[in-house]
Amino acid sequence: MANDKSPLSGIFTPNLTLVDEKGQVLEEELRRYTDWLIDKGVHGLYPNGSTGEFTRFRPEERRRIATIIAEQTAGRVPILAGAAEENLQETLKTCEFYAELGVRAVAVVSPFYYKLSPDAVYAYFAEIGKNSPIDVTLYNIPMFASPIDVPTVQRLSEEYPRIIGIKDSSGDLPHMMRMIQAVRPNRPDFTFMTGWDAALLPMLLMGCNGGTNATSGIAPEWTKQLFEDATSGNFEAAKAMQYRILQLFDRAIGTGDFPDGFRVALQLRGFKTGWGRQPQTAAQKQQLEELRGILAPLLDETAISEALHS
Amino acid sequence: MANDKSPLSGIFTPNLTLVDEKGQVLEEELRRYTDWLIDKGVHGLYPNGSTGEFTRFRPEERRRIATIIAEQTAGRVPILAGAAEENLQETLKTCEFYAELGVRAVAVVSPFYYKLSPDAVYAYFAEIGKNSPIDVTLYNIPMFASPIDVPTVQRLSEEYPRIIGIKDSSGDLPHMMRMIQAVRPNRPDFTFMTGWDAALLPMLLMGCNGGTNATSGIAPEWTKQLFEDATSGNFEAAKAMQYRILQLFDRAIGTGDFPDGFRVALQLRGFKTGWGRQPQTAAQKQQLEELRGILAPLLDETAISEALHS
Amino acid sequence: MANDKSPLSGIFTPNLTLVDEKGQVLEEELRRYTDWLIDKGVHGLYPNGSTGEFTRFRPEERRRIATIIAEQTAGRVPILAGAAEENLQETLKTCEFYAELGVRAVAVVSPFYYKLSPDAVYAYFAEIGKNSPIDVTLYNIPMFASPIDVPTVQRLSEEYPRIIGIKDSSGDLPHMMRMIQAVRPNRPDFTFMTGWDAALLPMLLMGCNGGTNATSGIAPEWTKQLFEDATSGNFEAAKAMQYRILQLFDRAIGTGDFPDGFRVALQLRGFKTGWGRQPQTAAQKQQLEELRGILAPLLDETAISEALHS
Amino acid sequence: MANDKSPLSGIFTPNLTLVDEKGQVLEEELRRYTDWLIDKGVHGLYPNGSTGEFTRFRPEERRRIATIIAEQTAGRVPILAGAAEENLQETLKTCEFYAELGVRAVAVVSPFYYKLSPDAVYAYFAEIGKNSPIDVTLYNIPMFASPIDVPTVQRLSEEYPRIIGIKDSSGDLPHMMRMIQAVRPNRPDFTFMTGWDAALLPMLLMGCNGGTNATSGIAPEWTKQLFEDATSGNFEAAKAMQYRILQLFDRAIGTGDFPDGFRVALQLRGFKTGWGRQPQTAAQKQQLEELRGILAPLLDETAISEALHS
Repeated sequence: MANDKSPLSGIFTPNLTLVDEKGQVLEEELRRYTDWLIDKGVHGLYPNGSTGEFTRFRPEERRRIATIIAEQTAGRVPILAGAAEENLQETLKTCEFYAELGVRAVAVVSPFYYKLSPDAVYAYFAEIGKNSPIDVTLYNIPMFASPIDVPTVQRLSEEYPRIIGIKDSSGDLPHMMRMIQAVRPNRPDFTFMTGWDAALLPMLLMGCNGGTNATSGIAPEWTKQLFEDATSGNFEAAKAMQYRILQLFDRAIGTGDFPDGFRVALQLRGFKTGWGRQPQTAAQKQQLEELRGILAPLLDETAISEALHS
Repeated sequence: MANDKSPLSGIFTPNLTLVDEKGQVLEEELRRYTDWLIDKGVHGLYPNGSTGEFTRFRPEERRRIATIIAEQTAGRVPILAGAAEENLQETLKTCEFYAELGVRAVAVVSPFYYKLSPDAVYAYFAEIGKNSPIDVTLYNIPMFASPIDVPTVQRLSEEYPRIIGIKDSSGDLPHMMRMIQAVRPNRPDFTFMTGWDAALLPMLLMGCNGGTNATSGIAPEWTKQLFEDATSGNFEAAKAMQYRILQLFDRAIGTGDFPDGFRVALQLRGFKTGWGRQPQTAAQKQQLEELRGILAPLLDETAISEALHS
Repeated sequence: MANDKSPLSGIFTPNLTLVDEKGQVLEEELRRYTDWLIDKGVHGLYPNGSTGEFTRFRPEERRRIATIIAEQTAGRVPILAGAAEENLQETLKTCEFYAELGVRAVAVVSPFYYKLSPDAVYAYFAEIGKNSPIDVTLYNIPMFASPIDVPTVQRLSEEYPRIIGIKDSSGDLPHMMRMIQAVRPNRPDFTFMTGWDAALLPMLLMGCNGGTNATSGIAPEWTKQLFEDATSGNFEAAKAMQYRILQLFDRAIGTGDFPDGFRVALQLRGFKTGWGRQPQTAAQKQQLEELRGILAPLLDETAISEALHS
Repeated sequence: MANDKSPLSGIFTPNLTLVDEKGQVLEEELRRYTDWLIDKGVHGLYPNGSTGEFTRFRPEERRRIATIIAEQTAGRVPILAGAAEENLQETLKTCEFYAELGVRAVAVVSPFYYKLSPDAVYAYFAEIGKNSPIDVTLYNIPMFASPIDVPTVQRLSEEYPRIIGIKDSSGDLPHMMRMIQAVRPNRPDFTFMTGWDAALLPMLLMGCNGGTNATSGIAPEWTKQLFEDATSGNFEAAKAMQYRILQLFDRAIGTGDFPDGFRVALQLRGFKTGWGRQPQTAAQKQQLEELRGILAPLLDETAISEALHS
């Protein structure tokens, strides 16, 4: 399946990077988590996204994380690997690494820190489109990185077949529609994925192929169900699920510093997550404990299951 | 129907205020426009909204505009009249005026110029909720006025039965969902209207009761069709129409200063609109002429009609 | 002095509008306040600015407020009267009114609510520059109204002698320098006033002619001293005073909704201010009471006086 | 001098990283540039700042760049080395490296990509303050990285003697004054440097100890002169120079993508700069050529020199 070139579709999990108390990757737990996600029905995995805190790991650690997940997945679902590095050349080397690893595609976030002009964003992705040995999805997350505007997406899609899609985490539905309207006529194969869980269902209804959603790493049963209901026309059920996911998403993203709220949530599903590499104050720890109390009744096995049939 | 107290629903047209070359209201043309909109199937009318440039008219002019429309409508559709004035006392007087005029409800935009705190926004609307003799819809348009946040909407909805709904022009779908989730359990009658045409269909699908959309003043046939298709489950047709409306909306809102692009569009439908009271440069006039050329093929009678059956 | 055409210079007080508990103007108290400000050494008065809550009064009330102040001032200091109305025509009529009243100039805030393009801002002020019978100062306050950018200020200054200056409340020092650099070579008489008390001294040092500062309505002794020290080269004293004014400004602007913190401060100087026309919650009232306790020791007569000699 | 523990003061140059057409560091040219800057009178050097594009080099390259500059400087002026890495642990290792290298202090930018809460920013710098073997300056650049707010700076300054100052590139003068007011009473040795060339003089006048200014890497003669005039009370000359520097700064920062405009400027001073590692479009190259024509007459030797005596 990893060599399958069919368009990306469905819910890809941007997984948390599970670490021990020293911030070192918990390989066995990460493998167990990978199996669990696949068993629960996610359509793909996405290591080294924002949820995975790619910026806080060293390049060789990022490669190792993706390798563990790819090995464990063993082709059961496609993998989208985050490949953005310090500069173009390093990003291209990482694209080569992932091509050899056999993942489905890479996701490359727009350059960050500096806020680049549309011209510069185009120039960066054009070089990747020209030189990458593996399929590339653009990654637009304007709250963190230089925005990729609609004309830039259109131009890149028309010039570089290697660029096969975009993951957009703006959460702006008309923006997504503008991209779809600008790109699909000439690139019907181009994939649109939303990274904003709060708008997953309406994004799917208006034409997105799927999502890369942090809540799918917490409650993969729910996002799977939503996707299936949405694509099979079972709209009322999908809508109810979207409101449920919104509650989980808002609470997890609204407490502490991202992605700490999602760590609390995943701990409630039975995984060791650690607390990453960003130190916390006592006040932050207290808030996260309070979140645990709030999320616990939503995420026990009974509640997870009941939501599927309500 | 004007005395009907059923919840607001459907597409309300925030009408342009038609004026002559001196900026004076064209009463006969406004009456003709009112009839035309009703004939084309809009579910309600909404004078003195942002599209109607309420801030550029004197208070007595605003009342006259609403009165003309109410007289001409003669109860055929409900009217939502913009009632925001300089301060609380003037706004309440205007509410009284509209109560006597017999319109369905008033819409009161959050105070603007100063950016008020949530407490101050609450205090303002609480006084209106307490004292208005006519039903009130809140009007949230954060790009222009002090934002009305979710807890404030929830609190107002629970404390003041006179406040019967909100018109939200943020275009932020998860924000709308958060409001619906917070308010509906205790106020199932509370009405949610979106003012952001670009997201009309997904807003309706996720639970909005309708919209107050400037494009409905240009192509009421299309917004009516979208609303009917959305509510009857004819989703694919509604989706195609939403993409069409997006094109009209983006072009009309993206050229010149709002609402000049909509004036060009309405001229193409056969109405005298004038150019309002805000002077224009030659460069702006030129841009609007170019827009005319772009919009003309979209808005001739054949194109309007064909879109309904494609 | 009211007919004096010399450039505006020094500290103009954007006065609070003193009202009773019903929000009606307290004429006698406003006259007493006018005298007090002039006695304390302000260089000018500025009714109907943002501090005076011009948007919350009806047009005839605004004219009455300015008339009271002009009468009471009786030429002792120049008056800059806020003249922005609903639209161009009304603003021009108000300019005519103020020309007859004999004030030094009007201040016209850029159109607000709608966020106008630079072209539209230009077109609006060009008409005023062409038609006003009284000198005009532009008023740029981008946090509340459409911004007036540097090329627009330059163009207006070169085309319309009636436009004699700008009051800028952005607080952005390089922006002020860019305006000065762009305008002064061709209009050496053009006046630059800063409305951002927190940067008053550095603005003066880099070339501003003066300020329109809310703190001058509270502690006119301090702003007068700062201005005199700045212009006479007594820099260390001016700097110490700027830091003191910053404390007053931050506390007054940072508590409650503007300009309530300034009302508390002025009450401490012995004036009845009322609470304006915007209702308050109990929580807001409590915050303002706490502010009273914080400001009291800064604003008693001894503290006011000691600051002048420290 | 590198072991001197006196407070940082004066103008530190955040140097461009000179590279060849492949993006590899031009060691000899960088050494020549180092000598030139010191000869022209800069008070310190600052490798691996934003101007040096630290995010686009690999960690070992960053260390190499700082090492070249430190070796070449050989203690003639103090060095502030940018030390921010992927995470706390890597940053601390880099602090150790720079302690051994013998530079004066490190500058650590607030974490970027994710927008951290004030608590998280505090927690990060607290760990650095506790564990760094070398003096640390905070680096606040809110347009690119998580903001460091005033209470956080105050708290860090009071708890960690290792933290000796802040470089602030917000350009917000009242913000700088608030920091100075909050910190100096308890930490009179704490250093405040501005990174915003457009406001260098007013920042110095209001209490900053110096600046880290990209224009000092282009026209070190000018920034030296401004600093000397400012500190010796030769205010009018300093003011004229500030306006000149503003022109250079605005043009260099306003064309192309940062820091390309500064590269063009430095080429005009006779250095090979390369174009970094971020690809450019033809349109960007054309803009930079136009900038060359604009900057050339400002930056020839005669113009540089004449400005010093005008």
